[in-house]
Parts: sequence; C-alpha cells; structure tokens
Amino acid sequence: MRRAISLASRALGHTSPNPLVGCVVLGPDGTVVGEGFHTRAGAPHAEVEALRAAGSAARGGTALVTLEPCSHVGRTGPCTQALIDAGIRRVRYAVADPNPVAAGGGAVLRAAGIDAEGGLLAAEAEAGNRAWLTAVRLGRPHVTWKYAATLDGRSAAADGSARWISSVESRADTHLLRASVDAVLAGSGTQLADDPHLAARDVPGARQPLRVIVDTHARTRADARVLDDAAPTLIAVGPDAVAAHLPEAAVLRIPLADTGLDLPALLNELYARDVRAVLLEGGPTLAGAFAAAGLIDTVVGYLAPALLGAGPPALGPAGIGTIAEMLRLDVDDVTRLGTDIRITARPRPHSAGRTKES
Amino acid sequence: MRRAISLASRALGHTSPNPLVGCVVLGPDGTVVGEGFHTRAGAPHAEVEALRAAGSAARGGTALVTLEPCSHVGRTGPCTQALIDAGIRRVRYAVADPNPVAAGGGAVLRAAGIDAEGGLLAAEAEAGNRAWLTAVRLGRPHVTWKYAATLDGRSAAADGSARWISSVESRADTHLLRASVDAVLAGSGTQLADDPHLAARDVPGARQPLRVIVDTHARTRADARVLDDAAPTLIAVGPDAVAAHLPEAAVLRIPLADTGLDLPALLNELYARDVRAVLLEGGPTLAGAFAAAGLIDTVVGYLAPALLGAGPPALGPAGIGTIAEMLRLDVDDVTRLGTDIRITARPRPHSAGRTKES
Ligand SMILES: NC(=O)c1ccc[n+]([C@@H]2O[C@H](COP(=O)([O-])OP(=O)(O)OC[C@H]3O[C@@H](n4cnc5c(N)ncnc54)[C@H](OP(=O)(O)O)[C@@H]3O)[C@@H](O)[C@H]2O)c1
Ligand SMILES: NC(=O)c1ccc[n+]([C@@H]2O[C@H](COP(=O)([O-])OP(=O)(O)OC[C@H]3O[C@@H](n4cnc5c(N)ncnc54)[C@H](OP(=O)(O)O)[C@@H]3O)[C@@H](O)[C@H]2O)c1
Repeated sequence: MRRAISLASRALGHTSPNPLVGCVVLGPDGTVVGEGFHTRAGAPHAEVEALRAAGSAARGGTALVTLEPCSHVGRTGPCTQALIDAGIRRVRYAVADPNPVAAGGGAVLRAAGIDAEGGLLAAEAEAGNRAWLTAVRLGRPHVTWKYAATLDGRSAAADGSARWISSVESRADTHLLRASVDAVLAGSGTQLADDPHLAARDVPGARQPLRVIVDTHARTRADARVLDDAAPTLIAVGPDAVAAHLPEAAVLRIPLADTGLDLPALLNELYARDVRAVLLEGGPTLAGAFAAAGLIDTVVGYLAPALLGAGPPALGPAGIGTIAEMLRLDVDDVTRLGTDIRITARPRPHSAGRTKES
Repeated sequence: MRRAISLASRALGHTSPNPLVGCVVLGPDGTVVGEGFHTRAGAPHAEVEALRAAGSAARGGTALVTLEPCSHVGRTGPCTQALIDAGIRRVRYAVADPNPVAAGGGAVLRAAGIDAEGGLLAAEAEAGNRAWLTAVRLGRPHVTWKYAATLDGRSAAADGSARWISSVESRADTHLLRASVDAVLAGSGTQLADDPHLAARDVPGARQPLRVIVDTHARTRADARVLDDAAPTLIAVGPDAVAAHLPEAAVLRIPLADTGLDLPALLNELYARDVRAVLLEGGPTLAGAFAAAGLIDTVVGYLAPALLGAGPPALGPAGIGTIAEMLRLDVDDVTRLGTDIRITARPRPHSAGRTKES
C-alpha cells in the first residue's frame, strides 16, 4: 500500500478535479504483477492502469488501492467492474471515497463476492490526498496559506522592501507548491504593490495553476503580469466594479461581503471550475480575512532567520481579540530549506478560530 | 576532548565569573587516569581536580583541557604549575584563553618543556563555552534574547492576554535557560504588565540568577514579585529617579540614553558584578533597543503553532528601516518542544544590524 501511495503522489498537481490514486496488483502468490496511478483527469484510473499492466496475472490476486474504487461510470467506466472482470479476489483500499457520486465501491465489490475492506494505511493515504479529500468533504477547494516572514513575523521591512527575505530554496519550494495546486490566489494589495506573476517557474512538466486576483474594485491594470498567457487568470471583482480595461474572459463577478468580496462565494465559483486545491499567497489582509472565515486548511510558513522589529505583519486582522480565540495549529512538518525554516501546520479541528467555519 | 567538553558542561550556570572547563588526564599508555571539571567559582580548576583524581598515574601522561590552562595565581593557584608539578608530558587544549590576566598558559607550559598545543575540537569547545568567551572578548556580558511568539510573530493577543501562548515544555525550558545564566533582564513594561518572578523554578540545584528590571523612572512597586528573597534583584533606574520606595541595596543607578537607560553602561555594571551571561526576557520594546544597539548575541525563540493576526509584536522597533539593514541570523538549532518549535540563532558577524556594534 505504501508503494501505491507513492505511485499516487507522482501525479500531484495533474489530476484535479480527480483525486490522486495509486494501485498495486498482486498475483495469487503475493508478488507484484501490476502497478498504476491516475495520471490526469480523463486518463484511466489507477486500478485500470494496474490491471492492464498485470494482464491475466491478476486473476485470483489482490488489488491494493489508495482510495475506494469508484462505482460510477465517469469518463472512464467504473473501476469496480474492471476489478471484477479481471478476477481479483481481494481488494484493500486505504481511504473511503467521500464523493457521493463515486462512493459505495466497496459495497459493490463485496456484493460481487470480493473480499473488500478499507482502512489500510489510511492516515498516510489521507495525508497524500489531503487537498482533494478536504475539498470533496467540504464542497469547496482546500486552501493552503503560504507566507514568508522573519522570525519576528514581519513580511517586509518598514519601507515595504521584502526582496529577498526568504532563501533561494524557499522560493524554489514555492514554485513547487504552485505547481501542486489548481489555483493561486493573491489580494489586490499584493497585486498593486508587487505585480506578481504567480505562475509556477522552473518546475519541469508543471501544469500551470489558474491565477486569481481578489480585487473588489478591479484595480488590476490591463498590463499586469498575471494577465500574460503563461497561465489562465481570473480577476475576481465586485458586482459593480468597472472592469472594462480587463479581458472579459478574465473577469469573475463575486458578491460583496464585509471586508471585500464574499470569500466562500469565490471558493464556490472556483470549485465549480474544478479547482480542488488553492494556494493563498497573501498578502496579510487577505490571509487575515481567510483565517477569520475559517477558510485556511493548511499553513506553510517560510521563516527567514532574521529580525526586523518593524514592517507589515505576516498576518493581518483575523477577528481574533484574545488568547482564547487564537487559531491553534498542529505542526505536520518542520524542514530546513537553505537558511530558512519551513513550517507546515494545520488548524486544530476544535481551535477557536476554527469554530467560525460552518 | 569530547569527554572533557561534556564534563565542563555539567557546571553550566555555576562557574561565573569563571568559564566552564573540563579536563581528562591520560596515563603514559593513553588510558584515562583522571577526570575533573570546574564546579563553581572558588573551587579548584578542572586540571587540578583531574590531576588529584589521577595521582601519580598522571606522571608522563597527557592532559586534555577544554580551555588553555591558566598561568595566573587566582583564588586557586596557576594550573600550569600544577600540570608541571604532576609530571604531565603533553597538554592539548581546545580554546585559547581570551582573558588577558589568565592567558599565556600554553607558552608557560612549552617553556617548561611540555608539548602543549591548542585547537583540538576548538569549535565544539567554543560552543560549549560561548557565553563566557563572548563576554571576556567583548568585555560585557553575553546576551541571549528569549521570546515566545506565535507563527505570525505576536507575543500576545490584541487585548494583551498571553497565557499560555507557549507549551509547558517551552516554559520548563525557559527555567533551564534562567538557571544557566548569571542575570535575567526584563523591561519596566513587562514588570508593570506581568509582575514576573524571573527566578528559575523547578530546576534542581539551580543557582538563582540575579534579577534585573530596566526601569528608568523606578516605576516598579515595592511589592513586586521580583523583590522577594528567592534570588537577588537589581532595579536599574535613571540618575534622578525617585526610588525611595525600593530597597536601597536593590537600586542601581545608570545614566540615560535615547530610549531609556544606557544599555552598554548597564551591561558594564553587570560585568563588574561578575555577570557573564544575561538572559533578556523582554518585552518587545527593550529587546528592540538591545537589537538596535547590537547587544544581542543569541536569540532563542519559542514559536507556538498558532496564529493571532493582531497583538503586540515579538520584537519592537530596532532601528531597522529597510531589508538591507535586516538583522540576519545563523540558525544553530531547531527543536520541537512539546507542540512548540524552539529556534536558536545568532546574528551573523557581518549582518547589517550587527555593524552597529562597536
Ligand atoms: N511575505 C509574504 O509571504 C507576502 C505574500 C504576499 C504579499 N506580501 C506583501 O503584502 C503586501 C500587500 O498586502 P495587503 O495586505 O496590503 O494586500 P492583500 O492582502 O494582498 O490584499 C488585500 C486587499 O484584498 C482586497 N480584498 C478583496 N476581498 C477581500 C476580503 N474578503 N477580505 C479582505 N480583503 C479583500 C481588499 O482590497 P479591495 O477590496 O480594494 O480589492 C484588500 O485591501 C505587499 O507589500 C506584498 O509584498 C507578502
Ligand atoms: N512573549 C514574550 O516572550 C514576552 C516576554 C516579555 C514580555 N512580554 C510582554 O511584553 C509586554 C511589555 O512589553 P513592553 O515593550 O511594553 O515593555 P518592555 O520591553 O518590558 O519594557 C520597555 C520599557 O523599558 C524601559 N526602558 C529602560 N531603558 C530602556 C532602553 N534603553 N530602551 C528601551 N526601553 C527602555 C522603558 O520604559 P521606562 O524608560 O519608563 O522605564 C520602556 O518603555 C507585556 O505585555 C509582556 O507580557 C512578552
């Protein structure tokens, strides 16, 4: 199963709106006879790939799959049928499929007389597919907030200068993050201050993410770098924003909320466009609004070993007034990246900041 | 030598104004015949302890010492003479003694026909004795700035509440830090806001550090917790501060400077009182002033995996206006302490913030 999880991860950033899935088929004697993974939406599912590789050696064997085999006829036909047709005797899957359309594969297999059971290495498989699982369960894209700051939590110096707070290695890692998601988001503040490009650079074979600027008043200029053709782009604007200077296809109208655009509505629109994983690149104001709305699922912080003592903070107001409301996180990983320290963490399910999510 | 360094470290927090020193004596056949370390100021030096343990077995042998043996008659007589008297043939020491009064031991030994050489495991021994070596080289106490903050660099929530941002393990570690230094410093802001105790708690055998409040206008109340008898205390006040409400012995007059008391003058006074290692516990304003003056030698940050988005910053104004002036650090260590992440780092010798040191 560990091998299947590792196979699945090879397609990171390429499968949306589908999950990452890996499959290993063992012959009746327990030796590996076939392997496969889901390479991209529209391509065969992992089970089908692995069964194809195994051929007749699969008969009487076992299939190890990272996700419950689907039972619906999608673009590629149900995997349950393929497993039955191949004469598989035993199926072990890691995580149940939360997608109501595809779920129930385990029951279908059992009804066909196959010994099918879930839960094998479930935590590991869950971690490998976190964004997709979160998205399908919540019905909105999984949001990773990425920031770079000094040890004292400053994202720039007092005069606004920020290049280069973080290390070369951290910046390269950010491009990997971008290549792993379906959309990259930034606020109008960052857009106007930095004119960022937001594409994944120097990642061989990367599928470019959709670039999204959250820009209530359509202040993004027509010559903004995000409007080049390196990747698709949406400028999310308010219902009445004057956006005639922007390419019509790039303009996405979103209702208003307290501090700007309605963020859940924006995420819904992105979900409808098959976006399952979002990388929120800031700045602090927009990140604070996401945090306040309970819309941050993972935090990736690049901490530079440096002190500033002044300058804009990494995170702006998030509606937290006292320690009891603090958004507590669980740390998944701490890694040295060049001179920087990268911290990956997730809001605790019952953290106060989290209760605002509904 | 590694053993000698580890022996030396056993007396951490007990030897000031003396260094940590460990010594291993080998007989002529290279087997260990004696070990010793300097346990506290006034007690025998490490070499003397180790030679005593070795007895006549030291004759013709080798002494491995973490610091160049002293050649001056202090409270305990010169170690060079003890080594010569014991018939030691070879001396290897790690770090040269920067103390002008004690230095030159290597030359004295060589003049007596002993094969004496420094530099063995110098980097390791240097790290083990960092505070003392820094203090003696700079002629002022070594300063460790310790802070606790969230991942976004907040030391408290917007309403000032801060208990408990950091984990039980981090708080216990802070008490170990306190027990390892000669003095603990806090600003009048922290004093008035938190009424901290600043003693080392729950550290068996700890020598309590001197507690110092940096309080220009003597605003510390007579019933402040730092004025109890758990440890000695100084309230550093300005030349004209009205301090009649404070115990006379606790009042230390310090000249004024731009933002309050003259910090180099304060450190000089502490050095004169045998303080070699200082733990600066904040708050942000005082820490910023120390950083601005280039008076921070080590940073220990306890980062809690949490976000606040508002509240006082970990570090206040440090005179840094732009990225080029950023105080860059080298990370020595990253450790998980309970749920927290402890980062230990030191200002880069040529970092901009550092050039302010003279
Ligand atoms: N260190 C880092 O990791 C990092 C990353 C990114 C940016 N930055 C820095 O951050 C700075 C810009 O940050 P910023 O805080 O000014 O801008 P920002 O967070 O990028 O954008 C904030 C703006 O987004 C718009 N917005 C739209 N809907 C919103 C909503 N629901 N809630 C909140 N805001 C909403 C608002 O303006 P409108 O309503 O007018 O559109 C708001 O002012 C730049 O200097 C940049 O360099 C640092
Ligand atoms: N998270 C942490 O690690 C941590 C640690 C400690 C404190 N805190 C929090 O920090 C808050 C207090 O911080 P704070 O910044 O207000 O106070 P502070 O840094 O403790 O004290 C600052 C005061 O020190 C005095 N001072 C004397 N000489 C100075 C000099 N040369 N330069 C600068 N200041 C000098 C000044 O007041 P006078 O001149 O009037 O004396 C100044 O206002 C409290 O809420 C506390 O809970 C957090």
